[in-house]
Amino acid sequence: MKEEVLLMIPGPTNVPHRVLRALSKPMVGHRSDDFHRCFDEVTAGLKDVFRTKNETYVFAASGTGAMEAALANTISPGGPVLCVSNGVFGDRFAKIAKAYGFDVTPLSFPPGVGADPDSLKKALGEKRFKAVTMQHNETSTGVLNDLQALAAVVRATDALLIVDAISGVLSAPLETDAWGIDLLIAGSQKAFMLPPGLAFLSVSERAWKAVETCKSPSFYFNLPAMRTAAEKSETAYTPALNLFFGLQEALEVITEEGIEASIARHGKLRDAVRAGVRALGLTLLAEDWCASRSVTAIKAPAGIDEAKMRKWVRQQYSILMTGGQGALRGEIFRIGHLGYVFEPDVIATMAALERGLANAGYPVEPGKAVVAAQQVFAQA
Amino acid sequence: MKEEVLLMIPGPTNVPHRVLRALSKPMVGHRSDDFHRCFDEVTAGLKDVFRTKNETYVFAASGTGAMEAALANTISPGGPVLCVSNGVFGDRFAKIAKAYGFDVTPLSFPPGVGADPDSLKKALGEKRFKAVTMQHNETSTGVLNDLQALAAVVRATDALLIVDAISGVLSAPLETDAWGIDLLIAGSQKAFMLPPGLAFLSVSERAWKAVETCKSPSFYFNLPAMRTAAEKSETAYTPALNLFFGLQEALEVITEEGIEASIARHGKLRDAVRAGVRALGLTLLAEDWCASRSVTAIKAPAGIDEAKMRKWVRQQYSILMTGGQGALRGEIFRIGHLGYVFEPDVIATMAALERGLANAGYPVEPGKAVVAAQQVFAQA
Repeated sequence: MKEEVLLMIPGPTNVPHRVLRALSKPMVGHRSDDFHRCFDEVTAGLKDVFRTKNETYVFAASGTGAMEAALANTISPGGPVLCVSNGVFGDRFAKIAKAYGFDVTPLSFPPGVGADPDSLKKALGEKRFKAVTMQHNETSTGVLNDLQALAAVVRATDALLIVDAISGVLSAPLETDAWGIDLLIAGSQKAFMLPPGLAFLSVSERAWKAVETCKSPSFYFNLPAMRTAAEKSETAYTPALNLFFGLQEALEVITEEGIEASIARHGKLRDAVRAGVRALGLTLLAEDWCASRSVTAIKAPAGIDEAKMRKWVRQQYSILMTGGQGALRGEIFRIGHLGYVFEPDVIATMAALERGLANAGYPVEPGKAVVAAQQVFAQA
Repeated sequence: MKEEVLLMIPGPTNVPHRVLRALSKPMVGHRSDDFHRCFDEVTAGLKDVFRTKNETYVFAASGTGAMEAALANTISPGGPVLCVSNGVFGDRFAKIAKAYGFDVTPLSFPPGVGADPDSLKKALGEKRFKAVTMQHNETSTGVLNDLQALAAVVRATDALLIVDAISGVLSAPLETDAWGIDLLIAGSQKAFMLPPGLAFLSVSERAWKAVETCKSPSFYFNLPAMRTAAEKSETAYTPALNLFFGLQEALEVITEEGIEASIARHGKLRDAVRAGVRALGLTLLAEDWCASRSVTAIKAPAGIDEAKMRKWVRQQYSILMTGGQGALRGEIFRIGHLGYVFEPDVIATMAALERGLANAGYPVEPGKAVVAAQQVFAQA
């Protein structure tokens, strides 16, 4: 059996060999010119990807750290926050806000359903919020929000717009400046094709005004400290150097493909997976209009132990899918198609899924999913 | 000129080739058995190094994150905290405590002077503190505290003992359980011979009691969330996987050398550097009784621009030393001898230092520092 696992999960994602090699470069001093050059290049590259001129920071942390940073630096205790949620990661914003003693109003949508701009408009009319949090792409339910439309609704108010684009950026259109996103959050282990350990955060001028008067505590994730350090091309605290080296290389991979091409590729991967899964008679959690381009959630067929099926596929083929989170555990399973994933990976996964389901007792006509996926890829 | 830089700084430190290789292993699922095995091995290894049976956690963060975690999880706003300080990192604890609105009493010692147990006893007699913070080894001034004696003073009270051993562990004796350390902080980029990006924290039963009633906000660094996840051999949020792989390998390197041998090696490195520097007529910041085994702070000779001297050495020999921090900038320079550093590295550094000082106009008799260091190494 292959030792390397094909990660068909929504992060961590497969890392290109040249990026793996970059990760093993020898260390340099983090307060020396050897690092300053890397810092500048990486910062410029991230701004390109996020389509922003806003200052953009890199924390040694996973994405949740930057979610906390966005809230803790801008909202004071008791501050009213509207937390849009399509699942576990939307709820996470609300949990962070509650941990800091903010006044949280949830605006939750059923699993698999994208956030509705009209509902958002109504909620924003009922109270004056300091900030609105939302996901670009909700990993737990495979939902892509219409961020452009939602952002426009928020921008008609003076609330800060805080967006977790961790599993969305580079898989779906994202315009930080044009759409008026104040705090944009991303992470290394998704479409950036790196191991986990870096969290990214871009900060608008409007957000900086909120930072100035913010009374919540922050230290490791303190934005003013990051801004001061960035003036010297450094981070406030010791950076995760080898992941910076990897990011430098990954940004080259991204530039070579092109941001638009990456988004288009993810659209194709999504369509192929959905076609394959449907050809097997399975039901998708999200409807087409809000289907994620990076992860597809599939309802577990009645009588099939989806966890056992995935485990068998992992053992037989070294292909890893994942289950549901929270209330959806056992109800759905998910196939990630995020980052360094290409047509052959989806085909192999469809074949493995066919075998896995058949082995679990679900009736499968061999080749159905594979052929349906192939047909999508064959289209122009 | 050599492309690889010899890092004679107190972190990040040189990373062994086999650890660099481990860093570039392909990713695995962080909620899969592939990671669970790694998690268990790493956790057991860290407990061995820290000499503790306490639960020990790994954060994707640099060491400062674990310093914040220790305070934010145990002390409520207004809580009285005594912050022992021998320099920048001692002061950092006080800054974190102030950011969280704790009632901070500083107990500061002059640069280069170890903390005095009698002064600590006196300070503890004047107020009932919830916690005492201190450094095992203060990186900014090259001071090793007598942690055993200081810990004994704290243990005569019911205050929590929070110790930053980031640059101390594996270079000097450390007994977390025997000395009664409640929260022990370490980081990957020091004697663990890894890149930065992992922070370690062990938590005593006494500390857990404080966690239960703590009213300060925490989310990314929340200890109860880490404890719950650890029961499944996982971290609360996505772990920095490639650094875990590296740590697995680094712990093997550490086991092969042995903890006692590592501590003895660092003692020898310290003695050799101090002998070499003294042979050049330079003045050391710390006296012998409290001299750090991982970093040596040296007063810049009058009329010598130490930053320019270090820059020249870096350019000529690819050997990196570092300067002073805060008020000591320009006043001292520092030579790290921490982690993957051996006799030939110190000899090369002494020779480079001789050349650097001579080039800067300081009178140097060639070979003086090298021979003095050699003599130390030649002793049994």
